[in-house]
Amino acid sequence: MRGLPPEDRLVERLSSLYRVRRRDVLLGIGDDAAVIQCAGPLAVSSDVLVEGVDFLPGSDPRRLGMKALAVNLSDLAAMGAAPLHALLALGMPPRTGLDWFDAFHDGFRAYAGEYGVAVIGGDLSASPTLFAAVTVLGRPAAAGLLTRSGGKAGDELWISGTLGAAAAGLQLLLQGYRLVGEDGIRGPSGRILRSPHAPEKRRLIRHQLSPRPMVELGTTLAEKGLATAAIDISDGLARDLHRLCRASGVGAVVDRDALPADSAISELSARLGMDPVATALYGGEDYGLLFSVPRQKAAALTRLAGRFALRRIGTVTAGPAVLLSARGRTEPIPDAGFDHFPKESA
Amino acid sequence: MRGLPPEDRLVERLSSLYRVRRRDVLLGIGDDAAVIQCAGPLAVSSDVLVEGVDFLPGSDPRRLGMKALAVNLSDLAAMGAAPLHALLALGMPPRTGLDWFDAFHDGFRAYAGEYGVAVIGGDLSASPTLFAAVTVLGRPAAAGLLTRSGGKAGDELWISGTLGAAAAGLQLLLQGYRLVGEDGIRGPSGRILRSPHAPEKRRLIRHQLSPRPMVELGTTLAEKGLATAAIDISDGLARDLHRLCRASGVGAVVDRDALPADSAISELSARLGMDPVATALYGGEDYGLLFSVPRQKAAALTRLAGRFALRRIGTVTAGPAVLLSARGRTEPIPDAGFDHFPKESA
Repeated sequence: MRGLPPEDRLVERLSSLYRVRRRDVLLGIGDDAAVIQCAGPLAVSSDVLVEGVDFLPGSDPRRLGMKALAVNLSDLAAMGAAPLHALLALGMPPRTGLDWFDAFHDGFRAYAGEYGVAVIGGDLSASPTLFAAVTVLGRPAAAGLLTRSGGKAGDELWISGTLGAAAAGLQLLLQGYRLVGEDGIRGPSGRILRSPHAPEKRRLIRHQLSPRPMVELGTTLAEKGLATAAIDISDGLARDLHRLCRASGVGAVVDRDALPADSAISELSARLGMDPVATALYGGEDYGLLFSVPRQKAAALTRLAGRFALRRIGTVTAGPAVLLSARGRTEPIPDAGFDHFPKESA
Repeated sequence: MRGLPPEDRLVERLSSLYRVRRRDVLLGIGDDAAVIQCAGPLAVSSDVLVEGVDFLPGSDPRRLGMKALAVNLSDLAAMGAAPLHALLALGMPPRTGLDWFDAFHDGFRAYAGEYGVAVIGGDLSASPTLFAAVTVLGRPAAAGLLTRSGGKAGDELWISGTLGAAAAGLQLLLQGYRLVGEDGIRGPSGRILRSPHAPEKRRLIRHQLSPRPMVELGTTLAEKGLATAAIDISDGLARDLHRLCRASGVGAVVDRDALPADSAISELSARLGMDPVATALYGGEDYGLLFSVPRQKAAALTRLAGRFALRRIGTVTAGPAVLLSARGRTEPIPDAGFDHFPKESA
């Protein structure tokens, strides 16, 4: 394994890797700051991935590069903003080799290309713990901002995609399953899996490692004025729904039977020791969008449902209570899910 | 010591701490992204401080908060950009208490207030290693960008401030000296220092812990069109001069006797085991600006010299060589200084 060359050589490497000819990038990687050309509102967000906290030690660097950008693009998607630029600050332990570095950037660049993001700067640092701190900039829809705070009593609650796949993928990783190459998967014993479940397991792990930010959905909702509030489901439906409700000053009733638990969950849940409903509510990292829709816009939304895998899961209410309803009974949904500081709670 | 409350409570705390009423901030802390209003070019830069790499374990959190913002503002200063906004991603180990958190933000906010920076977002994460990843946005001067790449043969080379004070401050910290309260200093034995050297030592440590970014100098140089190229001296004069020369495709001759070594260095150097000239060349972290000035602008620059502690230290040349001259002889200045990946060099 080759070690890292000096910092300035790495910066030259990145400057060439991310070279961009775009009228909105006046100066890219290589100077004290990047310079972009902008007009009007600009959405800006920073999100960090830390080894041992947000991803497992020894994670595949290419998929990590993808995820580091994806979780940030998901934040822009939740605002209805189209991604434009990214900066990447990377903290790397002494063991980091050039192969790791190149693979990480290969993944980061793949997603940048796919989502039209110009990578314009960042920082490289030694660090005992591996981390990637990304900042993204994007253009909000001309029709207006999509925030967490516009939900109104009577709105419908919708989400995109399924719930629980990323959490199930994490469980598989913790049990020792690993992706291999383009379409293989290795079991805890180290052997390549050939069982009928192999493609499903592979899909769940991919969902955990390489989430797809719902950029097009976010910009579509904002441009067409279909949503009153939105948030991305990063820390679990329950926690992010509580956040949307708090910001909007509303409550919610979620229909348990409408929750789109991932198709593999019910099948795998017993073997993985996971409760399907709990996984859907608290699992996290699915990176779909949760949003509120005025009743009169429901028809327009239904026309988008197939394209973006949308599903209505409940209703916004006036009260502060956030409830789960099933068979005519309701119970509170606790404000639980992923928290960076759970054990230090006062 | 109180531990940290849950993440959402900390975000609420920051949202209230950094609340801002400014027409260019459409949405601050608390949603998936911040939204700013902008028009024209925008300079963007990210810089990371990592515990054990960029600062000593157990560093004073308030001064660390200042430094985390200062090193980023210094990058904007080198571009001649006026700071506008900052985002802060903070990785905190389990031991982190609320007192530490509040003190860090007290320092960050103090510098933000002083330099007119609106803190609009960021991220909070658990992390085995403490780190602060900051992104700053700023407005370049209307007169044009200040970059590393515009230096011309025949230009004069100037720097602001003195050299070596931050490196000497670091040596004092490594020997066990610590700041105490508003004007005290503690020696390695733990006793408060009362010697005549105490104020000087305190000044050096402050220089290391709380650098002053040369924002006003940077914007003045850019607005008046006085500099052809500029860089901030973060990794030592030698390394940053090499960077400026490489980017500009030029060389340089630096006059050894013109180097403004900090007044305390020659006195303390023997006791600290530091060579004064080497400290000035390779010390780093002084965060002054190094810039090239066309001869015909020298008079205008001289009028600013007193206000910004400016000094001419040499000349830009055509060749690629970067040289130190003394008593009629020249020798190469090695491209040495701080590097995050020195031991892994190929």
